[in-house]
Amino acid sequence: MQTHDIDYRNEAVNLRGYLALDEKATERRPGVLVFHEGLGLGDFAMARARTLAELGYVALAADMFGDRRQARNLQEVADLVGSLRNQPEALRARGRAALATLAALPQVDAHRMAAIGFCFGGTVVLELARDGADLKAVVSFHGVLATRMPAMSGKVKASVLVLTGADDPLAPPEQVKAFEDEMRAAEVKDWQVISYGNTLHGFTNPAADGSMMRAARYSAQADRRSWASMRSLFEEVLR
Amino acid sequence: MQTHDIDYRNEAVNLRGYLALDEKATERRPGVLVFHEGLGLGDFAMARARTLAELGYVALAADMFGDRRQARNLQEVADLVGSLRNQPEALRARGRAALATLAALPQVDAHRMAAIGFCFGGTVVLELARDGADLKAVVSFHGVLATRMPAMSGKVKASVLVLTGADDPLAPPEQVKAFEDEMRAAEVKDWQVISYGNTLHGFTNPAADGSMMRAARYSAQADRRSWASMRSLFEEVLR
Repeated sequence: MQTHDIDYRNEAVNLRGYLALDEKATERRPGVLVFHEGLGLGDFAMARARTLAELGYVALAADMFGDRRQARNLQEVADLVGSLRNQPEALRARGRAALATLAALPQVDAHRMAAIGFCFGGTVVLELARDGADLKAVVSFHGVLATRMPAMSGKVKASVLVLTGADDPLAPPEQVKAFEDEMRAAEVKDWQVISYGNTLHGFTNPAADGSMMRAARYSAQADRRSWASMRSLFEEVLR
Repeated sequence: MQTHDIDYRNEAVNLRGYLALDEKATERRPGVLVFHEGLGLGDFAMARARTLAELGYVALAADMFGDRRQARNLQEVADLVGSLRNQPEALRARGRAALATLAALPQVDAHRMAAIGFCFGGTVVLELARDGADLKAVVSFHGVLATRMPAMSGKVKASVLVLTGADDPLAPPEQVKAFEDEMRAAEVKDWQVISYGNTLHGFTNPAADGSMMRAARYSAQADRRSWASMRSLFEEVLR
């Protein structure tokens, strides 16, 4: 498996993604975008990209903050995430820049692409789905489900899979309900929500021990189950 | 694979279950109860029992109505189901009779048992979980989640998996929310709810074509996904 940095742009912003793929494969393969959590593109999203490459996908861990910036504390997270979250059009454009980069690679079958995201990245993939991006599937792991621009009827093409902790204060029950109502109203053809009991925010990340954010806590069980559900969906739609 | 009827009793009621197992296996295997929908024990639940036997489980499709009674129309369903649903203690006792029957079989490892149920049967397995039955897992497929006897704190031992159609009028969003609140309040250690978008009641049953009940409609996709989720859970907890 090969990994290397890949630079791309969105307007004036330089973005430095991380690509993982099996260089020995000769046919075009499905491509999967990985969107990082609020801390920025770091080890966690890169490791997921490598795991996806081992599964046979071409995986691009995107950079949503520019110059691969990483937050050092919650205030920096709030600053970096907030400016994008408040401007869904800008957020979507930045996500689309990653999508276009991955789609253009000669190893990728651009008709078979998906996007996954963690925490903030979950928000990103849902915004891409709302935007009508050419993705077969989007998967949100403990993402914030709320939006300033709800999906319009018939616009969403992707199969949508939301994986959420039932006790995640960033995605409380009323937010999940509003999201489900949004999916119904927008007549999204394929959507699922999986709610894990006794599970907080950030459940996929072994580094989430409550020290930086009390509400973020790793759960080996929810991590394993959510990854398996993502794989099942990919086996359905990315064949 | 062998199948045969198996008679057992609950108080004065004769119950005629249907057992499916691999007679060639010599070691004790996990046992799985299958609880039928409101129509009574018929082809559908029996077929699921055979599939479970093919997967290596000893499967008992229980009879909840006595003498393997089957409803011929919605009024008979309402009569048969209603009398049990209104008396959760009686319903639980009848479910426990099936559990005791399966646990007593020499082919079954009574420490590794689970129960699945469809529609009315989903209600039954949730009532067994609330009752503190010695089950590693219960799985409800398009079951009614409401109860007259909510789970008490610490009582539920089973891992609980609820598979529900987001548009099932028998399990509307407010009922799902109340169920999740019940699970939280009862401090159930392991519970999950999977909600399938664009999915009605009865989604596992190819015979559900809306003719008997408008709200019941087969979905090959939700059927496949829900069965896969059940299998994943069993692989976790019945090993």
